[in-house]
Amino acid sequence: MKIPSLLLKQLYTFGSLSSEPEGVRFALTNRLSDATVTAISEIAFDGRPAPLDQLELEMGDGTHRGADQVAEAPIEFPLRRQMHVLWRGGVLDVGKHSITIGFEVPPFGKLSFEVEDAVREEHEERRVVPCDKENNYGADIIRRRQEFIEEHTGVHLEHLRGYSFDPATTRGNIENFTGVAQIPIGFAGPIQIKGEHAVGEFLVPLATTEGTLVASYNRGIKVLNLSGGVTCTVSDDRMQRAPVFVFDSAREARAFRDWVEANMAAIREAAERTSSVARLLDIDILLSNKFAYLRFNYATGDAAGQNMVGRATFSACSWMLDRLDTVRAFYLESNLATDKKHSQINLMRTRGKRVTAEAVIKREVLVQHMRVEPEKLQRHHRIANVGAFLSGANNNGAHSPNGITAMFIATGQDVANVAESSSGILYTEVTKDNDFYMSLTIPSLIVATYGGGTGLATQRECLEVLGCRGKGKVCKLAEIVAGVALAGEISLGAAISSLDWVSSHEKYGRNR
Amino acid sequence: MKIPSLLLKQLYTFGSLSSEPEGVRFALTNRLSDATVTAISEIAFDGRPAPLDQLELEMGDGTHRGADQVAEAPIEFPLRRQMHVLWRGGVLDVGKHSITIGFEVPPFGKLSFEVEDAVREEHEERRVVPCDKENNYGADIIRRRQEFIEEHTGVHLEHLRGYSFDPATTRGNIENFTGVAQIPIGFAGPIQIKGEHAVGEFLVPLATTEGTLVASYNRGIKVLNLSGGVTCTVSDDRMQRAPVFVFDSAREARAFRDWVEANMAAIREAAERTSSVARLLDIDILLSNKFAYLRFNYATGDAAGQNMVGRATFSACSWMLDRLDTVRAFYLESNLATDKKHSQINLMRTRGKRVTAEAVIKREVLVQHMRVEPEKLQRHHRIANVGAFLSGANNNGAHSPNGITAMFIATGQDVANVAESSSGILYTEVTKDNDFYMSLTIPSLIVATYGGGTGLATQRECLEVLGCRGKGKVCKLAEIVAGVALAGEISLGAAISSLDWVSSHEKYGRNR
Amino acid sequence: MKIPSLLLKQLYTFGSLSSEPEGVRFALTNRLSDATVTAISEIAFDGRPAPLDQLELEMGDGTHRGADQVAEAPIEFPLRRQMHVLWRGGVLDVGKHSITIGFEVPPFGKLSFEVEDAVREEHEERRVVPCDKENNYGADIIRRRQEFIEEHTGVHLEHLRGYSFDPATTRGNIENFTGVAQIPIGFAGPIQIKGEHAVGEFLVPLATTEGTLVASYNRGIKVLNLSGGVTCTVSDDRMQRAPVFVFDSAREARAFRDWVEANMAAIREAAERTSSVARLLDIDILLSNKFAYLRFNYATGDAAGQNMVGRATFSACSWMLDRLDTVRAFYLESNLATDKKHSQINLMRTRGKRVTAEAVIKREVLVQHMRVEPEKLQRHHRIANVGAFLSGANNNGAHSPNGITAMFIATGQDVANVAESSSGILYTEVTKDNDFYMSLTIPSLIVATYGGGTGLATQRECLEVLGCRGKGKVCKLAEIVAGVALAGEISLGAAISSLDWVSSHEKYGRNR
Amino acid sequence: MKIPSLLLKQLYTFGSLSSEPEGVRFALTNRLSDATVTAISEIAFDGRPAPLDQLELEMGDGTHRGADQVAEAPIEFPLRRQMHVLWRGGVLDVGKHSITIGFEVPPFGKLSFEVEDAVREEHEERRVVPCDKENNYGADIIRRRQEFIEEHTGVHLEHLRGYSFDPATTRGNIENFTGVAQIPIGFAGPIQIKGEHAVGEFLVPLATTEGTLVASYNRGIKVLNLSGGVTCTVSDDRMQRAPVFVFDSAREARAFRDWVEANMAAIREAAERTSSVARLLDIDILLSNKFAYLRFNYATGDAAGQNMVGRATFSACSWMLDRLDTVRAFYLESNLATDKKHSQINLMRTRGKRVTAEAVIKREVLVQHMRVEPEKLQRHHRIANVGAFLSGANNNGAHSPNGITAMFIATGQDVANVAESSSGILYTEVTKDNDFYMSLTIPSLIVATYGGGTGLATQRECLEVLGCRGKGKVCKLAEIVAGVALAGEISLGAAISSLDWVSSHEKYGRNR
Repeated sequence: MKIPSLLLKQLYTFGSLSSEPEGVRFALTNRLSDATVTAISEIAFDGRPAPLDQLELEMGDGTHRGADQVAEAPIEFPLRRQMHVLWRGGVLDVGKHSITIGFEVPPFGKLSFEVEDAVREEHEERRVVPCDKENNYGADIIRRRQEFIEEHTGVHLEHLRGYSFDPATTRGNIENFTGVAQIPIGFAGPIQIKGEHAVGEFLVPLATTEGTLVASYNRGIKVLNLSGGVTCTVSDDRMQRAPVFVFDSAREARAFRDWVEANMAAIREAAERTSSVARLLDIDILLSNKFAYLRFNYATGDAAGQNMVGRATFSACSWMLDRLDTVRAFYLESNLATDKKHSQINLMRTRGKRVTAEAVIKREVLVQHMRVEPEKLQRHHRIANVGAFLSGANNNGAHSPNGITAMFIATGQDVANVAESSSGILYTEVTKDNDFYMSLTIPSLIVATYGGGTGLATQRECLEVLGCRGKGKVCKLAEIVAGVALAGEISLGAAISSLDWVSSHEKYGRNR
Repeated sequence: MKIPSLLLKQLYTFGSLSSEPEGVRFALTNRLSDATVTAISEIAFDGRPAPLDQLELEMGDGTHRGADQVAEAPIEFPLRRQMHVLWRGGVLDVGKHSITIGFEVPPFGKLSFEVEDAVREEHEERRVVPCDKENNYGADIIRRRQEFIEEHTGVHLEHLRGYSFDPATTRGNIENFTGVAQIPIGFAGPIQIKGEHAVGEFLVPLATTEGTLVASYNRGIKVLNLSGGVTCTVSDDRMQRAPVFVFDSAREARAFRDWVEANMAAIREAAERTSSVARLLDIDILLSNKFAYLRFNYATGDAAGQNMVGRATFSACSWMLDRLDTVRAFYLESNLATDKKHSQINLMRTRGKRVTAEAVIKREVLVQHMRVEPEKLQRHHRIANVGAFLSGANNNGAHSPNGITAMFIATGQDVANVAESSSGILYTEVTKDNDFYMSLTIPSLIVATYGGGTGLATQRECLEVLGCRGKGKVCKLAEIVAGVALAGEISLGAAISSLDWVSSHEKYGRNR
Repeated sequence: MKIPSLLLKQLYTFGSLSSEPEGVRFALTNRLSDATVTAISEIAFDGRPAPLDQLELEMGDGTHRGADQVAEAPIEFPLRRQMHVLWRGGVLDVGKHSITIGFEVPPFGKLSFEVEDAVREEHEERRVVPCDKENNYGADIIRRRQEFIEEHTGVHLEHLRGYSFDPATTRGNIENFTGVAQIPIGFAGPIQIKGEHAVGEFLVPLATTEGTLVASYNRGIKVLNLSGGVTCTVSDDRMQRAPVFVFDSAREARAFRDWVEANMAAIREAAERTSSVARLLDIDILLSNKFAYLRFNYATGDAAGQNMVGRATFSACSWMLDRLDTVRAFYLESNLATDKKHSQINLMRTRGKRVTAEAVIKREVLVQHMRVEPEKLQRHHRIANVGAFLSGANNNGAHSPNGITAMFIATGQDVANVAESSSGILYTEVTKDNDFYMSLTIPSLIVATYGGGTGLATQRECLEVLGCRGKGKVCKLAEIVAGVALAGEISLGAAISSLDWVSSHEKYGRNR
Repeated sequence: MKIPSLLLKQLYTFGSLSSEPEGVRFALTNRLSDATVTAISEIAFDGRPAPLDQLELEMGDGTHRGADQVAEAPIEFPLRRQMHVLWRGGVLDVGKHSITIGFEVPPFGKLSFEVEDAVREEHEERRVVPCDKENNYGADIIRRRQEFIEEHTGVHLEHLRGYSFDPATTRGNIENFTGVAQIPIGFAGPIQIKGEHAVGEFLVPLATTEGTLVASYNRGIKVLNLSGGVTCTVSDDRMQRAPVFVFDSAREARAFRDWVEANMAAIREAAERTSSVARLLDIDILLSNKFAYLRFNYATGDAAGQNMVGRATFSACSWMLDRLDTVRAFYLESNLATDKKHSQINLMRTRGKRVTAEAVIKREVLVQHMRVEPEKLQRHHRIANVGAFLSGANNNGAHSPNGITAMFIATGQDVANVAESSSGILYTEVTKDNDFYMSLTIPSLIVATYGGGTGLATQRECLEVLGCRGKGKVCKLAEIVAGVALAGEISLGAAISSLDWVSSHEKYGRNR
């Protein structure tokens, strides 16, 4: 298997170029697989090869070797390990340089690629938040950061320090850990969910600082429960990365599209090579001007998957780029994903889960508990629909992001995905029996039960309360979130229709 | 001053209607001002007056009085206090009823209004999350809730209980307080802000569970600092509530618009009567079909203001409704506000703060620190612009909601407002000196330094670290948030343009 | 082959139900194929069968037969012919009725279906525009209509009568033909097109009443020609009809989607059965609430194809509906097509032709002929892009609909498709040689060279002038339209950037 | 009154720069007012003054004068006349040059300004469409054009020549007039309109080539008439031009906004100076990045007004620019107008007329004539609403652009405005009496009864048939168009809901 050179740069990541009195230094990180380097064939700077005997290799474990000795004494280069290279024969000016690297690794044979990197000017370092590159999650460095903040600002961090878990568990979730935000959690429910993954009654942790929110959702939950619960259905599940390929002309871009379609199997293989979970479903190809935008759609298991689809897409693109000479530029993202943004493409074609919550609410339940008739609620919804059309809103319902956000914070989701998850399509009708049918489709709900913040202390507890911890739980979580969101729609919708909306705020909120 | 009857219903809120063996009960809450009731003139159910001698009044302080005794012995009825009324003379069926209430309060004279409420069927109560109506924030009830959750789910809530503050401080911020979500906070910066309100270096608390986020923002902050800091400007500040008035025809709706415009001064007075802070700036009036949608725009000081503008708008609408007989229906919200939603109207006409962060980044700083030239970054932005246009995205930048959300969580904002705050308009150009001008306008950034969650324990500390605690700080906070958001744009934008985007994720994130 | 009953209703269209003194009448039109009816098995009204001996059949050719005689003497029932049925045995009230029809046609066997139709109340007929059901395109009836208009309004129709062609040629293009609108045509060009279908120089007929339009396009054409012409590429071609299926729940809708995907081959066959031209490319399925929206995408040859895709989709849906018992309602259109509307789905996924025009304009040509440098034009475009984003416009260019509309009118297109065709994506850059690259993608350009108005007198001449008359010319026309549209972009873009925009209007237009 | 220099360039338009053997030539057109030039103070090329005795002035009437003689013998320079200047003392290279012009005109005193223009390279002229600069509308030149087209393409233009009017009447409406497009007109109606401007029955000219269109509108008209007619209301009327001002920073842009608001009266005066009709209503100011976008809203009488608002806005901007030194660039249009485009800003804030058509259709009329019940139609509309939301359509109705376009072509409107006029907001409800209320708001209907193509031969006749010829008729026309559009909505909506939609196409259209 020949490895495309672009991919090669990813598999052996170059970094840390510097020019010091001792010589020029850089590092190479192995991301491909455990390997043995059997020879260094070439290392060149700006096209000029460095003699192998001026090059010294240093592995993370402290072992050193001359580049000219590798052929005799191969180097073990395990996955994710760094190899540091020192060229004692020259200096590089501040600015950009090209570096060529060639070496041999069985069974791949001779690998060779060229990268660009810059030697930076040395700036006098400003005072920055303290950081320990070796162990940035230890008690010492955390304390030093806390003290730094306190000194710098004169603020005593009493509560920020009040975490109950081992900070080391946050590695991979945050850098420069210094403390915690304590967000109040109130429980609503139990809500009765009639899903395919979530069946039964669920207590709902809502992390929020907005008075009336828990009460309002509780009110809606009661109404849903009195109507037999809420039916929830996940109808799609896909996560995206959307690179763009730049060509000389629209015609080249079109030819590329046809080529991609013809090579889909190989592209899929290249994408899926990077993960045991990510599965490439299909690619939406949008052509405009001289660009081909590819929106890769993946199944990502229990993870939200933004990172895994990034890697998979990069791998697929590397495979493609290595076979094409018409591409003039390439970017791994093009604002078509559309990560952390609302978009019409998400609304139409799903990002994360597409999930629908439905209920038929009995007329008398509505009247007795919400003081509103189905017809009145339906009329308000029709008029609010016109409002949403006029305003160009991404949601024709009342406030689904309220419940979604509170559950996101409680359960360790990437809360910035509220941007996408805020979309909603509410549909209502008065049934033949004069009851009230109501359904909410959330077309781009991004949730995970694995990865990201889901493993942190309180977050894990909340997922456990929901029974959404462990393998194969992500659709269950999506169903519960959707059911809760619908509870909020019935609650606020009825409040607006029956006019007591301001007063319910008065009752619970501080409303200063 | 004659008080409009619709407003009256708000000022004396009716509630808790029930029909018990003892008789019919309801409660009235005084939201107008401290008052003395000098007579009960009438109380009627479904049009049939109840004899005054069958009516008993009970004040929150335990005092009782017959309705027929009030004329002789007036009742003190302080602001925000409840008066309970018991009619011993009858029963009401389950379902809706109209209740007429008349009484005298100097100097307003005789006040009279009619409300509708429902008597609910008694359902066998399901097991719900325990709640203590008297003191729902005490240690006992919180413990009972924790135990209830644990019993109900079998999950031990070790960390949820790990809060460091007095739960009573969450009153008005949450109902059914049971514990906290502990969200890791990492600090980035300091970032150099050249605002009008924020001037100097600021340490930035980011509450997130997404690996690489703090590191990425830090990278951008470094580049901004090396370029002399980021200039931030708040150019607009307005919060909305958008009621809709329904008429018989488009012509009536149009007449209403003209009437509103002619009576703006009085409407403003009615709106501003409800708050010492809210100031009505203007009203956008949108006519469609037979509806008049009014988008009230307010200044709300240091609060985000969603609640205060709700009250103010209701008051203004009450004043209007009392003077009009062409309105066929009225709803306090119509999806034009557009609370907790992205919308084009927010993008155009601001919701919260409209704030811009700008910087000119020196060419050599970009090249050395981000390995990318201005022209390359600009080209990527142009192509991503086409991507945003194709996808119908609400943001043509890279990921401003990431930093915004992390700061929202840390500083006690209403995080669901990420829906609105996720919009962004990024503009870039290569300057005449071949440096890189970059600016981000966030058209609907909703922040507060007062009210909501800003007073809670860790949230207040974070605001203090930013120097954003106390009066008149909200624009300072908006400027800092915008500056941080721009740091993220330069960081991710450069990463995409220079291709090392996936690898930076590899380095910091777990990427499982 | 069993014919689905829903399709059957289409294949044998019911109509003209009336109840007269003589009896009840209706008509049946054969749209399936030439056939012989070998027996009438049943005709029933509101469930009550009419005795066969009370039923009389009358064919368009004047032959009569009792329904009970058909078994002995089969009836020829050719394609597109009507059979009139008279039931002498009863009357029907004004209002809706169900009619059951059963008959035998080899080789299909017994065909049976039920339809609903209404008997109308007889209203006294208002005076309406005269109409001759037999020959509505003859000189007499046209004259009567002209006189009717003149009498009714007192306006002398001197010029409306001034057509130069035989009105009979407008059959199928208009009803109640009364005259013509005479729209001035000016010619621009020739423009040099470097397409795949259009290669060479083309004279461009522009039918417009807007002063400066021809001059402005001519100015742009000159600049394009001086730069070597404009390269045009059609990258997609698809026409839609988008039915919606209503279910009891989201889950049923999802099951339907899976069923559709599994039965795609048969659905395609059912769709393509109706036309020798329409080819079903694929179906976009969008699920929301309890609805499944299907956007059928077809290739339609040289026709715009709206009608043929309507028939094909109906046929496909009939096939589906006949096999499903979960569908609660069905509508052939759902606002996802989106015919005669701009939409984001058109922008993304093409409606009609997706065509791009590109050119590199030499710096000196721009400066000398347009008085503007590439950088200045590019800057204006960047700023106008922000404007388009703020306004939520469907086109980030200057005015492509101007040229498109003028060519649509001249060449017999369905001009209302300007709604869709008005979208545009303009991209510009300054090349490495400091020239100006400019490209315009029109994502939903709806053009035809066959059908609709393309065969009418002046329209055909204009198509001939463009060399776009005859088979296989539609992509050629699309390329020319796109090239002309780009000429307009460079012309107006430069005018705005160089500030002489108002003055060019002064020069040519009346500007009163 | 001091005239701003930017405005001056507009008032004395420079043009036709050339460098010939004889010398350098240019022309100046007077657009200010009748004037007498009492002295030439300076004329310089690229900063080098030309001696006055080398300069010769030539007026349109053939009179000549040396520039040095003007002080003694002042020159009459009437409005709209050109003065040609010849400098016999030098040559200019091909490319851009700056020219300074100074002269004295009482009572304005000394006027002085500098312009840039380019001397073009002489290209060998391609064969282009023949054009006669003196008389481009004469029989000769038209014949030459026709012959040129015929020769160039081999197509005989039989019908294109078939116009019945004097081509001279098209001056100001088209350049290079060569013939006409003959578009069939069918009449529908009469439709009963209950407007404020249009009251009574109107025969509707529809110019279209789409079979079934006239029949379909006629069907809807019948139903509206049977329900008592359609009520139409114009609720807003405004035409835009939207310049953008570029600053160094967001803060400067904000200061500019405040300055504009403070100087509104003077800005209005400057705008209204250019026309006796255009009235500046207000300016929407949108700030983003370092830009201030100003959307000027005007009343424009019976004209559509795009040109007059261009001039007025330019004049206002000139006044502003002359008083500001912070503006770094200025463009008269910024994609916020949004001319010839759909946009959300048009939908919200009107472009052209905002007009609503409403009707209550009797249940039995619907059932008998359209075979559909109100509930069924309403349900379809609700579901199509979701479809419009999913697709991001600019119209939630069925096909209003069909009727609008046909009326636009017939009555001489700028048909490209179908782009804006295609938006629509349809609202439906079942009334308490179980009838059907339906209303359509067209938020940006652009119509004129004066200017543009409205005075042409057939166009004027159609306007006369509608009674919309002459002063003060534009709102009448808008009402009729809206009423007709509603007829189309009821017709197609009912056809879809009652399933006979394809078959009605079969009946009337060719459907090849």
